[in-house]
Amino acid sequence: MNNKGNILYAQSGGPTSVINSSAYGVIMEASLRNEEIEKIYVGKNGIQGILDETLIEIDPKDKNLELLKQTPGAAFGSCRLMLDESNKTIFKKIEKVFAKYNIKYFAYNGGNDSMDTVMKLSRYFSSNNIDVKVIGIPKTIDNDLKGTDHTPGFGSAAKYIASCVSCIAYDAKAYSKGRVNVIEIMGRDTGWLTASSSLANLSKNGPDLIYVPEVPFDTSDFLKKVKKIYDKKKYAIVCVSEGIKDKNGNFIGESGQKDAFGHAQLGGVATYLANLITQKLNIKTRGIELSLAQRSASFFSSKTDVQEAISCGREAVKALLNNKTGFMIGMRRKEGNKYEIEYTLEDIDKIGGQIKYLPSEYIAPNNIKSSFIKYVSPLVKGEVKLKTKNGVIKFYNL
Amino acid sequence: MNNKGNILYAQSGGPTSVINSSAYGVIMEASLRNEEIEKIYVGKNGIQGILDETLIEIDPKDKNLELLKQTPGAAFGSCRLMLDESNKTIFKKIEKVFAKYNIKYFAYNGGNDSMDTVMKLSRYFSSNNIDVKVIGIPKTIDNDLKGTDHTPGFGSAAKYIASCVSCIAYDAKAYSKGRVNVIEIMGRDTGWLTASSSLANLSKNGPDLIYVPEVPFDTSDFLKKVKKIYDKKKYAIVCVSEGIKDKNGNFIGESGQKDAFGHAQLGGVATYLANLITQKLNIKTRGIELSLAQRSASFFSSKTDVQEAISCGREAVKALLNNKTGFMIGMRRKEGNKYEIEYTLEDIDKIGGQIKYLPSEYIAPNNIKSSFIKYVSPLVKGEVKLKTKNGVIKFYNL
Repeated sequence: MNNKGNILYAQSGGPTSVINSSAYGVIMEASLRNEEIEKIYVGKNGIQGILDETLIEIDPKDKNLELLKQTPGAAFGSCRLMLDESNKTIFKKIEKVFAKYNIKYFAYNGGNDSMDTVMKLSRYFSSNNIDVKVIGIPKTIDNDLKGTDHTPGFGSAAKYIASCVSCIAYDAKAYSKGRVNVIEIMGRDTGWLTASSSLANLSKNGPDLIYVPEVPFDTSDFLKKVKKIYDKKKYAIVCVSEGIKDKNGNFIGESGQKDAFGHAQLGGVATYLANLITQKLNIKTRGIELSLAQRSASFFSSKTDVQEAISCGREAVKALLNNKTGFMIGMRRKEGNKYEIEYTLEDIDKIGGQIKYLPSEYIAPNNIKSSFIKYVSPLVKGEVKLKTKNGVIKFYNL
Repeated sequence: MNNKGNILYAQSGGPTSVINSSAYGVIMEASLRNEEIEKIYVGKNGIQGILDETLIEIDPKDKNLELLKQTPGAAFGSCRLMLDESNKTIFKKIEKVFAKYNIKYFAYNGGNDSMDTVMKLSRYFSSNNIDVKVIGIPKTIDNDLKGTDHTPGFGSAAKYIASCVSCIAYDAKAYSKGRVNVIEIMGRDTGWLTASSSLANLSKNGPDLIYVPEVPFDTSDFLKKVKKIYDKKKYAIVCVSEGIKDKNGNFIGESGQKDAFGHAQLGGVATYLANLITQKLNIKTRGIELSLAQRSASFFSSKTDVQEAISCGREAVKALLNNKTGFMIGMRRKEGNKYEIEYTLEDIDKIGGQIKYLPSEYIAPNNIKSSFIKYVSPLVKGEVKLKTKNGVIKFYNL
């Protein structure tokens, strides 16, 4: 009797520094389970690759797979395709491809839009009595997924952001008369990443002001605060989320473009505010956008984050082989002072398409409370020993 | 007989990731020479601090000094003051402060404008038979100082730039249809830093096009090249120096502001070119400015660079105690395949106020030749084991 099935892994949504560590976890765990799993496939460009039938078999003995742990982006390609349940053709097509490749286990790695896909696919397979299990592996630098203490990708982004902000803050005080540096950090809806800049205060060189999307932004109050700090220190560090909005809900840095999901494409709020300060207060400024390096600086990942991302991948395979479907792997922080994580199965219906905001208990006026440090600090701990060639980081290339 | 003198160290010009490593080298070497040196002083904010008499005595036994090796910026403060030889009052004032504090040895750490100060001060003390020796310690991320194979600060900046560009390039190919990413790199006059982005090609994820200030920028040719690459790959990575100019010598990203030295303040060329591509070619783009992190990301310094910066500091003390004056410490690369440096004394008259351009032998049309890799690769090698607290980099705070 050959009850063996094949496993498929695919990536979706915005890349992170550690999504490929989850891929590594899936592949390594699956390779241990060869009594149940015959072949390991990856889908190129997420669900789009499945529709296009670009499934690639992976040899788990390939030594280069080790490099996945330090490869940013999405090694197998990503997509932003969302499934519409009224479009039966697309589900039929996926069913057909899965049958053709004998896919019984599907692990989908992504953020809240991707968990929506996990929900819809698992519902489709279950309600049609098709023997395919679907599990979601969390991933987003934004840390805005429900059902988990935090998301893989967040810790590394937070580590890079806090390190950059502390170095920029130290650099900024070099001259007796400096500038106001406005640093723009990713976060369309939530302030988790921008809040992480407060970690830089542990180095005694952190932001003077922090603004997150959870609190309406008041421009005139902002200018008053900046002036007060600059008059005293002769320089200032301001960290703002790209998604800060005024009290009417209008983005401060709106550029007018929209992405494939119809979300507004932001960027430019740092430049906007820097120019405003120069105009209104006659102070020299610099607008700094941390940009793509925030989500891709795998040369300086958090070791904790990499290890947890691998574990999430491994846990997904275990869940699939336990015939679980329609769940996302979650991380729960154990009680007590020592940081320890247990992995959970979270009902996917309660996750897809939702947003976990930065709790108000962490938010102070124009700043972040020090209680947030206790939450975020364990997530950024540890540096990864890099594999390099001629001083340059090595990547896994498909 | 007490022939002992005191040593003074000060920092000037734009900060780097490793200027404080040179400070560490000076302090450690000086502490070994206590038969000749009584006290070790640092001047706050360069030559300005000497004029203001803000000299601070350093205890070389302070364990925190170890943190200088991972502290960015300018731990003792910088300035942009240049000395005017016709203004005798300022030289008299410096002479008086030096006499008051019994400063016989002065090590000044900076770029080409700072070496101009070393030249003028050493000339003043020599021609007036005053027993003060002055040595320059090179420092600039720009790598544009004459008299040395390369400058401390360049290797770390090059390492960070190459790492960021390779990670951004990997991230950029995640979607089946991506963007043109235009990455702006520091370099007002020279293309050394932007050329370093070519190191990312070793990871097989590097820039498609590289533009440096040494070659006039042709906008219409640029747009043609971008279109060709995008049509083929569906994404592109373009690296440009902030200081690229058209054939008439006008900056492409001119913003109109000038710094204290009268140099044009640049920035914005990435955004400008990204917008131009979108307008003319109807392609989605992203302008990315690597900004201050390039010169301050001491969380990811080159180990080679840190060690050489320390050595330059040590060599400056040795030269001063050998009664040398009016020299800059230089680094000469030994012949042969193995990378090895010998430290030299370079006549300061041939260095101050001059610029070492990227040699044309390294420049290809819209790109950098692979021969440059051999030059730059040894300079970026090695990672530093960081001292952290709660996952956050620790700094030396004066």
